[in-house]
Amino acid sequence: MNIPSCITALVCPKCEQSYDHREIRHLCRCGSPLLVHYDLERAARIVDTGTIKNRPATLWRYQEVLPVLDDRNILSLGEGCTPLTPLSTIAKKYAFGKLYMKDEGVIPTGTFKARGAAVGVSKAKELGVRDVAMPTNGNAGAAWAAYAARAGIAAHILMPEDAPRITRNESVAAGAQVHLVRGLISDCGKILARSIPIHDWYDVSTLKEPYRIEGKKTMGYEIAEQLGWQVPDVIAYPTGGGVGIIGIYKALKEMRRLGWIGDKLPRLVAVQAEGCAPIVEAYRKKAKESEAFPHSQTIAFGINVPKALGDFLVLEAVYQTEGCAVAVSEKEIIEALLELASLEGTFVCPEGAAVLGGLKKLRDADWIKAGETVVLLNTGAGIKYPDTLQYNLPYCPVDGTV
Amino acid sequence: MNIPSCITALVCPKCEQSYDHREIRHLCRCGSPLLVHYDLERAARIVDTGTIKNRPATLWRYQEVLPVLDDRNILSLGEGCTPLTPLSTIAKKYAFGKLYMKDEGVIPTGTFKARGAAVGVSKAKELGVRDVAMPTNGNAGAAWAAYAARAGIAAHILMPEDAPRITRNESVAAGAQVHLVRGLISDCGKILARSIPIHDWYDVSTLKEPYRIEGKKTMGYEIAEQLGWQVPDVIAYPTGGGVGIIGIYKALKEMRRLGWIGDKLPRLVAVQAEGCAPIVEAYRKKAKESEAFPHSQTIAFGINVPKALGDFLVLEAVYQTEGCAVAVSEKEIIEALLELASLEGTFVCPEGAAVLGGLKKLRDADWIKAGETVVLLNTGAGIKYPDTLQYNLPYCPVDGTV
Repeated sequence: MNIPSCITALVCPKCEQSYDHREIRHLCRCGSPLLVHYDLERAARIVDTGTIKNRPATLWRYQEVLPVLDDRNILSLGEGCTPLTPLSTIAKKYAFGKLYMKDEGVIPTGTFKARGAAVGVSKAKELGVRDVAMPTNGNAGAAWAAYAARAGIAAHILMPEDAPRITRNESVAAGAQVHLVRGLISDCGKILARSIPIHDWYDVSTLKEPYRIEGKKTMGYEIAEQLGWQVPDVIAYPTGGGVGIIGIYKALKEMRRLGWIGDKLPRLVAVQAEGCAPIVEAYRKKAKESEAFPHSQTIAFGINVPKALGDFLVLEAVYQTEGCAVAVSEKEIIEALLELASLEGTFVCPEGAAVLGGLKKLRDADWIKAGETVVLLNTGAGIKYPDTLQYNLPYCPVDGTV
Repeated sequence: MNIPSCITALVCPKCEQSYDHREIRHLCRCGSPLLVHYDLERAARIVDTGTIKNRPATLWRYQEVLPVLDDRNILSLGEGCTPLTPLSTIAKKYAFGKLYMKDEGVIPTGTFKARGAAVGVSKAKELGVRDVAMPTNGNAGAAWAAYAARAGIAAHILMPEDAPRITRNESVAAGAQVHLVRGLISDCGKILARSIPIHDWYDVSTLKEPYRIEGKKTMGYEIAEQLGWQVPDVIAYPTGGGVGIIGIYKALKEMRRLGWIGDKLPRLVAVQAEGCAPIVEAYRKKAKESEAFPHSQTIAFGINVPKALGDFLVLEAVYQTEGCAVAVSEKEIIEALLELASLEGTFVCPEGAAVLGGLKKLRDADWIKAGETVVLLNTGAGIKYPDTLQYNLPYCPVDGTV
């Protein structure tokens, strides 16, 4: 059945070249990622927030501003509408006004990658794709493999050997072809770039197809809806490839044009690890693009991206919203992870923990004012990272007491 | 603020002794677990399914039939309202009418244990408890540790050394005191029984406090609500301690009295592993209680429970609904796990996979008829079990192609 998607075209944010959305497209001929455009005036006429409220609790409730045209192509595992959990104890400890965590651990596959994969694979199916291929730090590969399996599409995945082990098993169990690489995700990307022309696979590398971002942007829609169509003062996001922050910024601009939120946008904060902080470096220099970060390393594996294809879009989101970029140490990541677990009961991934580390610094510097409402984006469940913490636990004898 | 909970008492299902719900209670003096009773006539007057539909998507939407009296005691991480995912490809392959998976992997902590912990810890807080203590196969401990952390309650946990490693880290990160035991969960239980009088801890072992089951029963409410207040023909559940199946049966009876569903109940199926099948043995003998299963062993660690305290309630649920109990081999569990991943894109825990194994047998024997609607309960995310599958993956050289 047809969906009232208001998609109109794929448009280059750099050179403004427009492309037909009914054809398979990757990058613009100028080399930039493409963004999906919608007829938002039409969308505003045919749907309102009251209608959306009564739809099922998945990201597909925002169907007018999603790219899929026929609901038979929708592959859903129930993704989206993740919790916006109040972190009252930590808010009190550090004198935040209100602090919420958008908890993307509570989603199929355990990470926010499910959003991009759900929309990306559904649209790939609609476009008649038979094979998807990608480099991954693990979680994206696992998510795309899962949705590809549901679609009956073959998945070809390259991941660094250091990627979280469970993501290998998820991908292989889903039937994907997985190859390991003794290198970084950027090395995987280079291998794939050489391999794709041989096989004529559909390249779903970060931002190389335009639809992953459409899935990710729904985090922005949900945050606004969950706050009663108010926006917070600050949204902070762990930034590797940056698709999420680009998507949230896109969602905010769309919602403003739809009239669903007011004019004022939240300040968007890109949080990185000190061991891989190309966006933070660029922000310090007020640069429009980042430079490749040398010898990158961090336990927050998902944000170990030395040079992101969409770096200029991340920086634009930061600058245009008067946000900022901040880096945290490995020690600060672990401290924040333990604070979230022991004070709030939320066991997050290191990337999500990094965000709390960054927010503490910004609060300390009074960049975030007392009384402001802040949303921390946790991109995944801590349970996908069994080795982040190491404990030696006491044994109790079978005939003993504790 | 007060919640219109319709709780009236704690009642023994064996000897019918009634207890005041405003006091801390564990087992009945006759040794049986206690069940929570509600004034369902009052509940039916003050709430209807239309009102519930408009409440937030957590298990707390069923507040009239939950035991918490004051919403300041509610500890929520956004648990409940998990997806009911259609498994159309597998349904077609095995000629099920409709096959759905209630996916309890999409919940805080990654398993259905979050439901029991959310309600159990909230009620413990309401009762003034300062220390909870439990034996666990891992996931329950992790969930109770998380919610206890959020409540500011201390948690004392005993788990077999073979329990999933990630659950140790979750528990310790949340600030729980964790002790490992070279034995089974039953050995942990014995140590705890000796230790509790020393410390005066609140015993939250399976069914030893009456509120965990109230959290678990919400799975039953959600299945009915998600099917438009219709019940399926069959609900199949991986049975270890059995709290979930007891809870679902309790929910079904409550909903019938509330007038939210019709008279006919689904047939409840208890699925166990051949390596630990005490309920299946009892069912074969038409017994009312099970006998301890010797030398139990299975990769479906969560259902390795040789003798459950609530066995008689599990068997009652099976007999009263004209359900059955069925055991599956380790090989059938792995096969089902891979089918779910590769055909549906759902990466489940071995316990959830066991259920599909059982359903295939029952369909094969025509115990489940073609055309019947079946709900498979997956109790947790496969990502919590990194070692269930072992693959040797090919490496691709950094300068190579795939």
